[in-house]
Amino acid sequence: MNDTIKSIATIMKDLDGILLFPHINMDGDALGSCSALCLALRSMGKKAYVMINEPVPKNLDFLEYGCCTSDDSVLDDVQLSLMIDCNGLNRITGREKAWERGRLKGCIDHHATKAKEIRYDFARIEPKAAAAGEIIYNIIRAMGVEITLDIANCIFAAITTDTGNFQHSNTTSRSHEIAGHLYKIEGFNSKVISALIYDRRSKQAIKLEGEVIAGLDFYADGRLAVGRVTQDLLKETGCTMDEADGIIQKMMSIEGVEGACLFKESENNVRASLRGRTYANMAKAASMFGGGGHMLAAGCTFNDLSLKDAEKTLVPVLISTIEEK
Amino acid sequence: MNDTIKSIATIMKDLDGILLFPHINMDGDALGSCSALCLALRSMGKKAYVMINEPVPKNLDFLEYGCCTSDDSVLDDVQLSLMIDCNGLNRITGREKAWERGRLKGCIDHHATKAKEIRYDFARIEPKAAAAGEIIYNIIRAMGVEITLDIANCIFAAITTDTGNFQHSNTTSRSHEIAGHLYKIEGFNSKVISALIYDRRSKQAIKLEGEVIAGLDFYADGRLAVGRVTQDLLKETGCTMDEADGIIQKMMSIEGVEGACLFKESENNVRASLRGRTYANMAKAASMFGGGGHMLAAGCTFNDLSLKDAEKTLVPVLISTIEEK
Repeated sequence: MNDTIKSIATIMKDLDGILLFPHINMDGDALGSCSALCLALRSMGKKAYVMINEPVPKNLDFLEYGCCTSDDSVLDDVQLSLMIDCNGLNRITGREKAWERGRLKGCIDHHATKAKEIRYDFARIEPKAAAAGEIIYNIIRAMGVEITLDIANCIFAAITTDTGNFQHSNTTSRSHEIAGHLYKIEGFNSKVISALIYDRRSKQAIKLEGEVIAGLDFYADGRLAVGRVTQDLLKETGCTMDEADGIIQKMMSIEGVEGACLFKESENNVRASLRGRTYANMAKAASMFGGGGHMLAAGCTFNDLSLKDAEKTLVPVLISTIEEK
Repeated sequence: MNDTIKSIATIMKDLDGILLFPHINMDGDALGSCSALCLALRSMGKKAYVMINEPVPKNLDFLEYGCCTSDDSVLDDVQLSLMIDCNGLNRITGREKAWERGRLKGCIDHHATKAKEIRYDFARIEPKAAAAGEIIYNIIRAMGVEITLDIANCIFAAITTDTGNFQHSNTTSRSHEIAGHLYKIEGFNSKVISALIYDRRSKQAIKLEGEVIAGLDFYADGRLAVGRVTQDLLKETGCTMDEADGIIQKMMSIEGVEGACLFKESENNVRASLRGRTYANMAKAASMFGGGGHMLAAGCTFNDLSLKDAEKTLVPVLISTIEEK
């Protein structure tokens, strides 16, 4: 089932009372896409909210645009629950109750994996879209809604974060064509949005990055880089875990590195973020420990292991993954 | 004088024996633009070279495509000398002799300042172009030359480096439209080019960055960040100065920083790279010491001062610049 942009636009135009669901650990694409659609629906006089149950990351706070709520009962009548940039109840944990309220269920995503447990009334999954924001942009246009500056900012944030600023191989002509359109909107300035997303790093976060980089270990002839964000390091630098964002990209910028693993130690578990450069299938490695993701960007969580033991468990698998070529 | 793309394309089609001149301290736009045009001219059976007299930076080495030479007498007959991404003899120092060989002189640039000492036979200066590569792309198209994968790689490198990966405020619809076209060329993959430019940083360079960041000083209530790349630090980390590229961007990513100054100590002089975020006029500050550039990205050189004295001279001016708002 893959409904057309046009048919989804038609369905949405007839509905009111809409809850939009970004995935857990929301990123710029998830929140930007949800807020863009929420603003578009509201501009048509509809009641719509973005349903969240975690704090919005600091660097994405400007993308709220008054859309976000954690209140399950914010709407009397929910005609549609719509997952955006995700697909599956395990991606909206803690919000299942709100999700169930929707009389219709929908999904707009660009991840190829599709949840089997949900019967959507409509769904559009475009694995070739670099960002969910590209699909949302097309739906908003198809609904005949004007792209305002606020909507443009949301769409730009969605696309630029998910494409690594138009550098990753998921970027397409379409990504650039949409971005090119956004520039035609009065007042649009990529630098303003970009500075909000990327240029508000605290001095502490910069120091944290330096410490993690200084402590990197290398395996497989320098092709695998392994780093750690420990609770001790967070305390020492005065950082929260979300300030570790970007460290793994830095690890991937080192010559010869084909794969990177960044362990993030929280109070309850140890998460591993995985990246590959070209051939290493990190999603496959992550899936061995109940995780998942894309081939070149994946992750998994260890609930019952110390950081040290998680490392002992995962690193040998990653070495094999890197050496498999 | 601002000749049309079409008239320049017509002139070029009639010429043979062409030397292309990128500016000193060549960057991705200068070299990418020159190589793109050189490849296009060669594909028409013409003799063309990119004239340089300094090593190509390591992260741009793939942009040579066999075009670069330092041999003044590489061509028997030079029908055209063409400056690209620059304008003025002080931007092609050490290559004046080769420049003079051209029977015709031309200039294609996107910097607003125009040299008065040269009488160009044709010139096109588009201050609104984000990169010289955008103008070159249009000229190549106007010449009727097919955009090959190699040419596409050069143009992408030119635009992505000069726009800060499509984030800076110089980016326009046109930047994205051209990038969008490049994706339609068989085999084009932005990630490949991006990885060559950005993801070949040595472990030493990463360490150098960490050390400079750790040693930053802040002035004007944290709005001015000042860093130093000393000869001692280069020796300690085993780096060359070109491995300091990117450090100033990192300084600008710190919350609250409105301006950054990175001092680079070489054996003969001290250079200062300056960046502004929004309002600080760094070109004006640089011009007080014989330097120049754009408002938000400028630089100057101190030939007769130690690093310490250069700092004592420049920093108070920068504090005033930042506090002028």
